[in-house]
Formats: sequence, C-alpha cells, structure tokens
Amino acid sequence: MKTAITPTRAENYPDWYQSVVKAAELAETSPVRGCMVIKPWGFALWELIQQALDGMIKATGHQNVSMPTLIPMDFLAKEAEHVEGFAKETMVMTHYRLIDNGKGGLKPDPTSELEEPYILRPTSETMFGYMYAKWIQSYRDLPLKLNQWGSVFRWEMRTRLFLRTAEFLWQEGHTAHATQAEAVAETVLMHNVYRDLLENYLAMAVIPGTKTPDELFPGALTTYTLEAMMQDKKALQASTSHFLGQNFAKAANIEFLDQDGERKLVWTTSWGASTRMVGGLIMAHSDDNGLVLPPRVAPAQVIILPIYRSDEDKLRVLAAVEELQDQLQKQTAFGVAVRVKVDDRELRGGEKSWQAIKQGVPLRVELGPKDLDKHQICLTRRDAQPKDKQFVSQADFIAQVGELLETMQAGLFEKSKQNLAANTQTVTSLDEFKAFFKADGGFAQAYWCEDAINHPLLDQLKVTPRCIPEAGQPNEVGECIFTGKPTKVQVVFARAY
Amino acid sequence: MKTAITPTRAENYPDWYQSVVKAAELAETSPVRGCMVIKPWGFALWELIQQALDGMIKATGHQNVSMPTLIPMDFLAKEAEHVEGFAKETMVMTHYRLIDNGKGGLKPDPTSELEEPYILRPTSETMFGYMYAKWIQSYRDLPLKLNQWGSVFRWEMRTRLFLRTAEFLWQEGHTAHATQAEAVAETVLMHNVYRDLLENYLAMAVIPGTKTPDELFPGALTTYTLEAMMQDKKALQASTSHFLGQNFAKAANIEFLDQDGERKLVWTTSWGASTRMVGGLIMAHSDDNGLVLPPRVAPAQVIILPIYRSDEDKLRVLAAVEELQDQLQKQTAFGVAVRVKVDDRELRGGEKSWQAIKQGVPLRVELGPKDLDKHQICLTRRDAQPKDKQFVSQADFIAQVGELLETMQAGLFEKSKQNLAANTQTVTSLDEFKAFFKADGGFAQAYWCEDAINHPLLDQLKVTPRCIPEAGQPNEVGECIFTGKPTKVQVVFARAY
Repeated sequence: MKTAITPTRAENYPDWYQSVVKAAELAETSPVRGCMVIKPWGFALWELIQQALDGMIKATGHQNVSMPTLIPMDFLAKEAEHVEGFAKETMVMTHYRLIDNGKGGLKPDPTSELEEPYILRPTSETMFGYMYAKWIQSYRDLPLKLNQWGSVFRWEMRTRLFLRTAEFLWQEGHTAHATQAEAVAETVLMHNVYRDLLENYLAMAVIPGTKTPDELFPGALTTYTLEAMMQDKKALQASTSHFLGQNFAKAANIEFLDQDGERKLVWTTSWGASTRMVGGLIMAHSDDNGLVLPPRVAPAQVIILPIYRSDEDKLRVLAAVEELQDQLQKQTAFGVAVRVKVDDRELRGGEKSWQAIKQGVPLRVELGPKDLDKHQICLTRRDAQPKDKQFVSQADFIAQVGELLETMQAGLFEKSKQNLAANTQTVTSLDEFKAFFKADGGFAQAYWCEDAINHPLLDQLKVTPRCIPEAGQPNEVGECIFTGKPTKVQVVFARAY
Repeated sequence: MKTAITPTRAENYPDWYQSVVKAAELAETSPVRGCMVIKPWGFALWELIQQALDGMIKATGHQNVSMPTLIPMDFLAKEAEHVEGFAKETMVMTHYRLIDNGKGGLKPDPTSELEEPYILRPTSETMFGYMYAKWIQSYRDLPLKLNQWGSVFRWEMRTRLFLRTAEFLWQEGHTAHATQAEAVAETVLMHNVYRDLLENYLAMAVIPGTKTPDELFPGALTTYTLEAMMQDKKALQASTSHFLGQNFAKAANIEFLDQDGERKLVWTTSWGASTRMVGGLIMAHSDDNGLVLPPRVAPAQVIILPIYRSDEDKLRVLAAVEELQDQLQKQTAFGVAVRVKVDDRELRGGEKSWQAIKQGVPLRVELGPKDLDKHQICLTRRDAQPKDKQFVSQADFIAQVGELLETMQAGLFEKSKQNLAANTQTVTSLDEFKAFFKADGGFAQAYWCEDAINHPLLDQLKVTPRCIPEAGQPNEVGECIFTGKPTKVQVVFARAY
C-alpha cells in the first residue's frame, strides 16, 4: 500500500519521524546550530497545549512572572550538583557590542568584553532563588508559587526537532514552602497536573513514578516523572517535577521568620514541561500517512473541502460551506467551540485532502453539488483509512460532531494505553532482561537495588532506568536482577529518547 | 493632603513613576544589568494586553511562529542601515561551555569559543528574511503574514523599568507581499490595530502619524507611529509599524515567481509593540495614590474586602462575600466575565484597602455585618478620592457593575484625550517654539521641511520630531519654522521617553 510518509515506521522509525514533522509543516531546522523554527501549524498546536497547561497552573494557585533570560555566571557556581549538571552545555554571553572587522564584516568589540559574563539560562532555579531570598521574609510570604513561560538554552550535541534542541520553549514553576510536607505535596500536585495534561489532552498513556538516584535532576532530592511509550517502544520522559529539599534554599540563602519566632530555610520545588511534549505526541499517535492529532489539541478539528467544477456550482457550494462552518462552530467538543477550517484554495481536491491527512486534522468533510442536493456530506476520519468515506446527513453530522471528536480522543488514548500495556513486561532475571532488549524491547519492570546503578549491561544494551513506578510495586522482597541483593523496589527500564 | 506615593507627580515625575511601579508590585530590577523581573501583578496586566493584541493579530490573518533567540552574527551585516542601527547595542554569545577557573568559580572554556559568534536578537528582520527566502517560491506563497511573541535584547545604557530595559517582551510581525500597495496596506492595517489596542483597551489618546526620515526604523522606508502623551506632557512612542520596501528582500534575496512568469523581489513589513506600553499606561493614568488601571485590562476589576470582628460575623460575612463574588463573576464587562478577587488575608482593613488603591483595582467593595443586614455594599471607585465611599444596594451593584466598569474606562480615555488636546499647540515661529518648550512644554505642531533635520535647537531643548500627524495637516503651504523654506508638511515635536 502506498503511504504518504516514506520511510514508514516499520522501515525506519527515526527517519519516519523527521518526515512526519516536515510533511505536517510543524517545524524545521534553522541557521542557528541545533535551534528550530516552529511553523504556524506546529505553533498553533503548542499554543493549545500551552493554554491548557497554563489554565491548570493558575487553577492550582500559581501566578506567572517573567525573569531575565540571562543569568550571572557566578549564580551557577552556587549549588555544586547543579553546576555539574549544567556547566557543560551552557551558552555564554561575553560582549555587548559589535564593530567592523576590517573585512567588510563584524566582530565583537574587544572593549565591550564583560568582566563577569552572563549565561543564557539552561533553567532558572538560581535566578528564582536570588529573587526569593529578597521577597521572602516571614511565614506570611509563604507559600510562594510562581511560574514562567519562556525559552531555555542547552548546547546539545545531537539535536532532533522538538525532542532535543539547543533552545526550546517551556514553562518552569518554582515554589517555596515553610515545611517539607508542603513542598512534597506541591511536587506531587504538579506531577498530577502534568499527568492530567498528558492523558486527557495529549491522549498519551504514561507510567508515573520517581527517578532513581542516578537520573535525578541536578540538585533534586526527588524527581517525579511521567514516562510515555512511543510506537517504537522507546520511552519519552514527558515532564518532571522536582522536590529540591533545602539545597537551593541553602545556596541562595532563602530564609524566613517562622510563626514560632525562629529563622528557617524554606523548602523548594521546581517543575517543567516543554515543546518536547510535541515530539512525544507526534511519535505516540502518528501513522504512515503523517501526523495524527488528538482532537482536543488540534488547531483545526474539522476541515471542510469544497468541491465544484463550474462557476455556478462554486457559488452554491461556497455558500453552503460557509453555512456549514457556521453551524459547526456553534457546536462544542471538550466544553469549547469546535474549531473548523475551510480550505478554499484553488488547488486540486486530492492535494488539499492529503495535506489535511498529513497535518493530522481529525475530520475531513467534502461538500459538492450532489451532496448539497442530498443534504449530506462526505466524511473521513483521520483515525480511519483515507478511503473509508462515509456519507452522513448534514443535520446528523452537525448534531454529533462534538461527540464524535470526543470519541476519537478516547480512542487514541485507549490505543496508547494498549501499546503501553502490550509492551510492558515484568522480567525476573538478567538473562530475561537481556533477551527482552535484544528482541523487540519495550518497558521491562524488574527488582532493582541502588548498587545496580551504572551496571555495565545497561550501557551495553543502551537501556536506562526510567522510573520507580508508583503503581504495581511488589509486596514481597525479591532479588535485584543485577546484584542479587534483596530489595522491595522494582524499576521500569527502557531505551529512551 | 497625604498621598500614598511620594514624591508626587508635581514634585518629581520620574521618581513618582518608579515609586508607583514599586508600590503596585509590577516589576523590579534584577541582578542582570538593565533587565527587569516582571512580578505577578505586572505580568497579569501584560497577559491581558497580550491576549487582546494576539486576538487582533490573528483576526487580521496572521499566524504565530517561533524563531530562534540567537542570530548568526553575519546576518546583521547584510542590511547596511540596519547594522548601523543595531550593532552598537548588540549582546554577543561567544562560548558554549563553562569550566572551573581554578579559584573555586567558573569561566568560559576557551576551547568552546565559536568561530562565528551569535548575537541575541535585537529584532528578527534578518532571521525572518532568511526563512522567507526558503519558504517563498511563487505568488501562491504570498502574502506571508507571520508574528512571534518573545523577548529581544538591546544593551541600553540608561534603563528604566518597562520604558527601556536591556531585555523586553514584545511581539514582532513580519510580512511579505507581492506588491508595494499590499505591503503599504498591511503596514497601515497593523498601525490601526495598535491604535485600537491603545485607545480601546489601554484608554490612551494617541497621535497617529509617520516618522520623519531622521527617526525611521533602521532599513525602513516609512515608519508609522502612535505617539501618546504622558501626564508630564512628554511623548511616548507606543508602537511602530514599518514599510520596509524591498530593502530586506534584497539583503536576504527573497524572490518569487509572479503570475506573469517573472521573478521579483517581495515587499516586506514589520511591526511591533512591547512591554513599553505598560510603562506608558502607568504614566498616562496613575495618580499620587498609585497605579490607575483601565478596567478592561485590570487583572482584578473588583476587589471585595470582607470586614468583621467576631468569629461569628466572620462566618456570615465570608459566606456573603463568596456569594457576591459568584454573582459578580456572572456579569460581563467589555463582553467577558467580570474579574473579581476577594482579599481575605488576616490583615488590617486599611492595609488591604491601600494595597488595592496602589495596585489600581478599579472598584473596591467593603462588606461587613451591618451591610449584610441592609443588603448593601460600601463601594469606592479608583477614579474617585479614597474617601468617596458610596453605599449601594447589592442588587443594584450586581446589575450595574459591567456598565460601571465600562463607564470608568470611557472616563479614563476622555481624560487622556483632554490632556492631549489641552497640551498640544500649533506654533508658527521659532521664538514661539522656544517659549513653548522653555515653559511647560507639550506637543508643538509646526511647519517643517527635511532641511530642518538635526537643527541644533532641537538638541538644545531636548526635543525630537515625534511624527508627521495623519490628521490636521494644513491645506496651504507655509514656512518651515527652522529654515523658512516653503513646505506643506507639519510635524509634531515633543520631549520624549
């Protein structure tokens, strides 16, 4: 069967991914090393995800702020583990003026060199920490729960659109609390917010859990993560929420006068989700004809393609199309108005239809003179084969469009859950573990203990511990498959993006 | 009379401005030179302005995208005037790694120095130009109308919160068209969009016009501007919209195959508005008690302050407050739900009330046990004196809140128009011009010709040509007040931020 995307998933999954991104016109590389340009369709998708998440962040009592993109270099030096984690991939601003280089070009003006350079923020724990130390005086100032949307910078060696780029868009929440219990509760709260977003908006099944010590965020005591499974059975870390203990409070000296009259260090958290989620969404749902979008975040949920040959028909059809769009936009799906686009460009119908398929529009509606006479439309679902057309009465379609989109959303989520369940397996020995990853792979859950960290087999198999899953932990002690030591902990392992 | 803000506007306008920003908790300086931190109340205000403008940008057929923050240094060299305009204040990224400096700190790793540095975008004409050259092939790809929200960087020597900062938030639109006429129409379209935003959302009277050649955006043929008048009678350029002709198309080689089979250069525009507007809004409306917000962009339009002494009253009052908030949120102002906040912190009533005044909340509602018995509220308007309290029946207040907010918005705009009209004067001689600016100043409109550019008197008086106003140009030829030469053009002059 001919497919719109070559190679197919089965032929070459990484190349298939790049082709889908290109064919859907989501993003492309830029002339800046490792940085991407997000194109209108990709950005509209990101905006819908962003708006949903922003609403949840505000509903849980957080406020947005804006901090500088630059950070004084010495800020990074304050928290030892943090600097280890980020110094290697930090972009540095050293000059503030350009002058003529004498060869018709420009160069940094040597006289504008800064004594203390700035870095382009890889994350903003240190900047929030500095401001929090100024803002927080007493227990009355707590909790302080702020968030910012912006971009961050990491000089990555191997980049891939959305999945790993030198600059990416994200939000980063930073909170400070009077007690450890409150900070832990906040970390879990946001972990659950992300889960809501991923499951109910992006239709992605995830395994919620915590990171093993070797995979913690630099400076964190606990990192909560959501691990999603892509169609090639590899894992994608979709979001993280960190309990930072008092590490950053110590480094930035964030103290408060408590109700009991004592000065204490605050407890902090941070949590973030980024444009990486878009990469996950693409890899979780798309097929060999291109992008498949969960209807809830599709910039257009319905696309209407008018069909006509004569000028006379054109007038009739376009009038009917406008009326249909109007009617559909009065319907709701997921509690908001249905998003309907009309493609009335003067192009071949096939070309327009295939573009809509490749861009992942959930419902395609063709409307021609014959359909008008019969008060019907020709409907194709993105989750069906391109040729599975159904003729439906206009009135029925209008009445049912919201429910149909919600059903398709549920179907995608169900499929994602099945993919996760079908490719997750408990393994009880190292041999089984090896066999699992030498075959098709997937998520392997196994007894594990801390002495297994950096076991050479993991590197050999290119497998990493993804998380200690919240659900399904055993009641009995078992043997770590790597060390043979007794343990009550099981870990999920996988190859990962 | 005691005021919440010291000094007052009359005593020291620049210091009054800084005090208002601080007292309203809008923003503060950061540890990064010239860069600000926008705090929750300031950012919520910015978000409302941003959402309004974003809606208008989309409604006029533009789509959002995301381009890299960094730009290859040699991109800036391509358009001669553009480089002149921006090279002096450009921040430069030269390294991509930090290492130990041997003294317990960090330093840029010399081995990570880039052969070709990147600059932090001061504006993105060159980056959009590069991508447009790839994306535009034929007339079918035109017009291309894209916008991006983000931050830009200019190493400013003297900075002031919101008005001039080394990093600021903005949107920048970039469009490409097949014909000059279309590009000019686009430039005017966005100029009018900004006027709509400023007048109808920010309640600021503006003089729309075009810049004189000495004040053009680097590389532009025409720059449309909106000049607002602050309460100290100085001008603030609130937004600009540029017709770039084919200058950037030539520099970036953006060609298309036209319908007539010929290859042609496109015509481009760019237009932007930034967090500077927030500075303008503050200076346009605020008074000696703090920020005054136009209700349409106020993060909270109504604040309810519960009043009680006993625990018994507390229960009754808080229940009634919740009910009132609920009822008010069901009302609409400016076509959307009224935004209502309750301040139930355990603080003195006077403290909470003054905070609401300083933060510019349009309506303050006090509700105590006696008010409950009488089914009334105690209402204070931000545009009245703090002591001008009115007792209003709850039912009437709920029924009229939307209209009241709209009336207050109209009142602020009217006041701004009156300030502009009262302080704008036509002057007919150089002596009159001098006298005007040696006295109170304001906007002086006078005959002007191009040979008057850089007239030494302007520098002496610290006055600049603000714009060639669209309205009120004379029908008769007159004499340029600087050169005596005949001209049909009048220009508005002022001291400016």
